[in-house]
Amino acid sequence: MKKLSILGSTGSVGTQTLDVVALHPESFQVDGLAAGNNTALLLEQIKRFKPRRVSVASRELAEQIRLEIPGDIKLYYGEEGLVEIAAGGDADYVVTAVVGSVGLRSTLAAIEAGKDIGLANKETLVTAGHLVTEAVRRKGVSLLPIDSEHSAIFQCLNGEDPDDIHSITITASGGSFRDRTREQLRDVTVEDALRHPNWSMGAKITIDSATMVNKGLEVIEAHWLFGLPYEQINVLLHPESVVHSFVEFKDSSIIAQLGSPDMRVPIQYALTYPKRLPSPAQRLSLAQAGQLTFREMDLERYPALRMAIECGKLGGTATTVFNAANEIAVARFLRREISFLRIEEILEKAIAGHTPVLHPNLEEIEECDRSVRKLAELL
Amino acid sequence: MKKLSILGSTGSVGTQTLDVVALHPESFQVDGLAAGNNTALLLEQIKRFKPRRVSVASRELAEQIRLEIPGDIKLYYGEEGLVEIAAGGDADYVVTAVVGSVGLRSTLAAIEAGKDIGLANKETLVTAGHLVTEAVRRKGVSLLPIDSEHSAIFQCLNGEDPDDIHSITITASGGSFRDRTREQLRDVTVEDALRHPNWSMGAKITIDSATMVNKGLEVIEAHWLFGLPYEQINVLLHPESVVHSFVEFKDSSIIAQLGSPDMRVPIQYALTYPKRLPSPAQRLSLAQAGQLTFREMDLERYPALRMAIECGKLGGTATTVFNAANEIAVARFLRREISFLRIEEILEKAIAGHTPVLHPNLEEIEECDRSVRKLAELL
Repeated sequence: MKKLSILGSTGSVGTQTLDVVALHPESFQVDGLAAGNNTALLLEQIKRFKPRRVSVASRELAEQIRLEIPGDIKLYYGEEGLVEIAAGGDADYVVTAVVGSVGLRSTLAAIEAGKDIGLANKETLVTAGHLVTEAVRRKGVSLLPIDSEHSAIFQCLNGEDPDDIHSITITASGGSFRDRTREQLRDVTVEDALRHPNWSMGAKITIDSATMVNKGLEVIEAHWLFGLPYEQINVLLHPESVVHSFVEFKDSSIIAQLGSPDMRVPIQYALTYPKRLPSPAQRLSLAQAGQLTFREMDLERYPALRMAIECGKLGGTATTVFNAANEIAVARFLRREISFLRIEEILEKAIAGHTPVLHPNLEEIEECDRSVRKLAELL
Repeated sequence: MKKLSILGSTGSVGTQTLDVVALHPESFQVDGLAAGNNTALLLEQIKRFKPRRVSVASRELAEQIRLEIPGDIKLYYGEEGLVEIAAGGDADYVVTAVVGSVGLRSTLAAIEAGKDIGLANKETLVTAGHLVTEAVRRKGVSLLPIDSEHSAIFQCLNGEDPDDIHSITITASGGSFRDRTREQLRDVTVEDALRHPNWSMGAKITIDSATMVNKGLEVIEAHWLFGLPYEQINVLLHPESVVHSFVEFKDSSIIAQLGSPDMRVPIQYALTYPKRLPSPAQRLSLAQAGQLTFREMDLERYPALRMAIECGKLGGTATTVFNAANEIAVARFLRREISFLRIEEILEKAIAGHTPVLHPNLEEIEECDRSVRKLAELL
């Protein structure tokens, strides 16, 4: 019986994590749930999963739900509440599924508290990969990827010697606009961008998929998760999203992980590793899929991916700049303040104007994050 | 440093095994070589790899080469010579790459002598899977598949719990005649049949690939190698032969092994497992491959596969009948005595006329093998 806390329980990964928990009540028990503003859904989750500790975005929301939940549930709020759910309590495993850089401090707190981590928050490794991996080593905890691509690579490395890796390849569907030229991107709308061809995901990650920022963040994350230099990390266009990613070994043998696009599979694997449990995900029929296609990634078509890799190689705060500028730019696009292509321009300008601090500590990262956010609102 | 003996050193797998040895002289040393009639090539191999023990097909051939090789090399001949190379000497690892049912007795002898086995001889498991797997368990030796499909599955099972397997799928290129209807198979020639689209292999296995007998033997072999019932073993048409085979797990996740069609990769893996060493095989570029296609296997189009699975389910000597009748039928086809489609008719008749002996011992298997061969010459 694994005791879980889930940061971001009402989001896309959070709700699917609870789906997995519901399927295997003999294996999991929920200790803590941290949500944002969606208290209606959180209340349902509390009723169903009976956590002992809960957190919401603000004091007001906490006061609102206080009377609607059993009195013995400990109630927290704000960023400190998030950290409390992450690091306190009896949970031995924390799923960090909050979106954005708010996940960093809470994930680090959970690691310091000796908890194993199921990581769905990309920004944690993107902005502080050096701090997180150092803390994971020092505390001897496990850091398991939940993202389908990293889960795929993690699965392909089962039983293998990391020294035998030649390279890893992250596949990319190409996002909502994969069949459009850059010229055709000029007047696309928020609605167009949110129509992802293969995966059902949150709004931010769907936009990041269309700009290929998502793949850029995944490359940086893979660099830290698997301890590989950027030269050994490739990205390949694979419109069908059936091959979730693969590893090529020294002997030229490739091991790939494939499946239907269902996030419950990588979520569950991160929770049950090294075991596998039955899943309600639809089984993949390759005969029915008929064909799988692959083509080279074009960094001219997707400049945000090029910028991400450049920031990754620069290191230090460069990746924080990339991530913070992108969060603001995407939020502005979703608020219809800027055009789709303006996202890339904001990234370009934010990066150009920054001199990276190497080996930043948490405060320096957060300071950089704040200042870039301010800047990106004005670009 | 691993000491190897190679049974069938001048055949397709044998020569490629020696290619691998030549690439990694720091890892391997050749103790014994057993060849058939190709003494010219064997003499070259002796010069290059300096084995201490050698065997050829007959006494006459042994006498022919005696004066051409160093006097301290022990020289054997015939079936007993093969067994001597398999079970005697200092080798700790025996590659059984002889074609046909002659591989059985020598493989069993090597296992009884406590040697690890790299198995390229399909007939060993097909005719005596119950005896071989029992001996492997009893002697605590390793039995490693060399065939690309079984190597693929073996690689996909790295670090996994066998209880978590949902099914395994062996891919099939479809062979030289994959784009022909059964009607179009009536007048095909030996030359047509030997033109395999993807793999460079020996003559018998290329014909077996065209009839799909090869896949049938692989299914039976997989049943024994991985301890799975026939219901959990699938065959899928995959013309490009890029995905060499795959495993689907309980959680719907699929792990596949991919690569260029180069037998040196699975041969080397069987020799270096669990490590991987660099290989001269061409790296696979999925972008260059562009697309991979898959379609359901059609048992009406390929009745020999259906018969193989039926024989596998019957068990006992049924698979020996299938294999022996096929060896004779293919030899007759290669001698241009019968048509291509007659191979299947001979299989059908041989199976129909046989009542399987369950749990046969080695003598019963060999007796069955001999009598079916006699019969199949006349069918």
